[in-house]
Amino acid sequence: MADGIAVVSPVCPAPLLTVDRVQLGHGSGGKMSAALLRECFLPHLGNPVLARLADGAVVATGAGELAISTDTFVVSPLEFPGGDIGALAVHGTLNDVAMMGARPLCLTAGFVLEEGLPIERLERIVRSMGASARAAGVPVVTGDTKVVERGKADGLYINTTGIGLLDGDFRPGPERARSGDAVLVSGPLGRHGIAIMAVREGIAFESPVESDTACLVPLVEALRTAVGPEVRVLRDPTRGGLASALNEIAAASRVGIELDEGATPVPAEVAGACEMLGLDPLYVANEGVLVAIVPAGRASSALEALRAHPLGAAAAVAGRVVAAHPGLVVLRTRLGGSRVVDLLPGDQLPRIC
Amino acid sequence: MADGIAVVSPVCPAPLLTVDRVQLGHGSGGKMSAALLRECFLPHLGNPVLARLADGAVVATGAGELAISTDTFVVSPLEFPGGDIGALAVHGTLNDVAMMGARPLCLTAGFVLEEGLPIERLERIVRSMGASARAAGVPVVTGDTKVVERGKADGLYINTTGIGLLDGDFRPGPERARSGDAVLVSGPLGRHGIAIMAVREGIAFESPVESDTACLVPLVEALRTAVGPEVRVLRDPTRGGLASALNEIAAASRVGIELDEGATPVPAEVAGACEMLGLDPLYVANEGVLVAIVPAGRASSALEALRAHPLGAAAAVAGRVVAAHPGLVVLRTRLGGSRVVDLLPGDQLPRIC
Repeated sequence: MADGIAVVSPVCPAPLLTVDRVQLGHGSGGKMSAALLRECFLPHLGNPVLARLADGAVVATGAGELAISTDTFVVSPLEFPGGDIGALAVHGTLNDVAMMGARPLCLTAGFVLEEGLPIERLERIVRSMGASARAAGVPVVTGDTKVVERGKADGLYINTTGIGLLDGDFRPGPERARSGDAVLVSGPLGRHGIAIMAVREGIAFESPVESDTACLVPLVEALRTAVGPEVRVLRDPTRGGLASALNEIAAASRVGIELDEGATPVPAEVAGACEMLGLDPLYVANEGVLVAIVPAGRASSALEALRAHPLGAAAAVAGRVVAAHPGLVVLRTRLGGSRVVDLLPGDQLPRIC
Repeated sequence: MADGIAVVSPVCPAPLLTVDRVQLGHGSGGKMSAALLRECFLPHLGNPVLARLADGAVVATGAGELAISTDTFVVSPLEFPGGDIGALAVHGTLNDVAMMGARPLCLTAGFVLEEGLPIERLERIVRSMGASARAAGVPVVTGDTKVVERGKADGLYINTTGIGLLDGDFRPGPERARSGDAVLVSGPLGRHGIAIMAVREGIAFESPVESDTACLVPLVEALRTAVGPEVRVLRDPTRGGLASALNEIAAASRVGIELDEGATPVPAEVAGACEMLGLDPLYVANEGVLVAIVPAGRASSALEALRAHPLGAAAAVAGRVVAAHPGLVVLRTRLGGSRVVDLLPGDQLPRIC
């Protein structure tokens, strides 16, 4: 798989890199990120594996194939309702490995600590990280700690790299969606982003929204058992939300995607918060939701498998893959209209993960 | 190898974690780092692999053994004579994988960018990273980019994680030194740390000192061919310098180490700079030097193999492993005296890598 993969731009068209300094939007996962990646990173680091631009890499070792993913977490605040940077750093990377169809084997952890960080706080976060890793059954096998002066970080940043084993022909990939496929969403959207924004903006809800941060490996295993290699695409819609994830899939597979507003699970409290904050829930980050694209004929098996697990209790068929408008995601609204759900240029919510 | 490894403390005795906030010294690789690791990280993330406290982990996959190492680079300044953070991030992690006796297979890269970083500078660093990876023949297969606000980083930080394949019985490890072994050093000491300090302190030397940042894989391959599984220990003496590396080996192997001052290769310009700056060259970081411990009878073969490569042209037998004073490193001075070369409590040179 590592050889002969064509370079697939996740965004088409995308702006050129027209600024001369890094801006917050370059970290958004949107068009600015794509431009930075394409113009500043790929020309120098490029190789067929990296150029695939997925959330991870498949590397053949001669004795099997490894799935590898790396992610640095810079979420602010460090602790939030439903989780913290430690749990997020474990779940986020395990989920990326799982979305490639691999079974996670181990994690590494690299910490950048800011001078002055209370050690009690650090320990609380490391404890949460350990608990998340143990719950997932995946050990943190090696780590590194650096300390920088006050004002050179924001408490702490954590990089985690995950390594998994690919096995057999269960190989979901963003380029595999086909016209006629069903688009499934495993759970309620927008909870992570709204939980973070509520803390950051000091907003109190009647029923507080908690981050959905969770390990999605059990849902992937359920789909592997129920549907097997016919699972075409798996994706966790984190930074940039469902809209960005579907745009990347539409571009990589050169298909259109239609989303039904009425079938897309947005909890009332998330919808309310989004209205108050001027956000579109389709772009808000999730950390415990997956998108699965399967042939229409396997949609009910997939749905049943997802719903059998607590994390997937609210799973729904939210849309379909179409041959029309390749590269575009279109939302069919409750009122019968439709609108294009484009990739955002920059950041709706910075430092969400 | 992953199972049943006893927890070996690299420092004995080491201070308890007596402060309540993170200090720069916690990132030093010295006693404070060890205390933080032992008291804040290991109780929560602990498992037999992590507890081994080496610079990387060996993970059995059923289809072979992987060597994995992760490192976050926070060096200041980002560019310095002889290198930059990009080259360092490639060499540092490849070297850690190589020191485990593995052949590096691939790298991941995670970037934290500070808002306002000139894109031209970023591109120069990424280009250097790509050139270093290509020169080593090891691809960067996946990456991640995050952006934080101005004043929440220092230009950029880079995490690299390296994965290598272990093959056969070439398994150097810090616990394998035995009384009677020879301690070899592959090249001149202290150049990286002094190059960084010179820029930081605005010191101009008559002959400028350049960082020695380099990929040590060819030296390891030379030793693998010439000496094979009898290579007991390999270590690149980075943060904390030769003194810290030898202390960790002495503790892990429960042996003493004697170093001959006259045989330890410290270039005149490094010695001069150290005198001016009040530093001990034995504690100054190297990024292109390795320590190899081999049975005395194999020392000349090892030396010949190292010297055959330009990076090892100045290789020397710098000392020996002894049964006396287990856990201690002792320097035999040129004047015939001796002094204990202890692990430093905190940092001599912060943010050197």
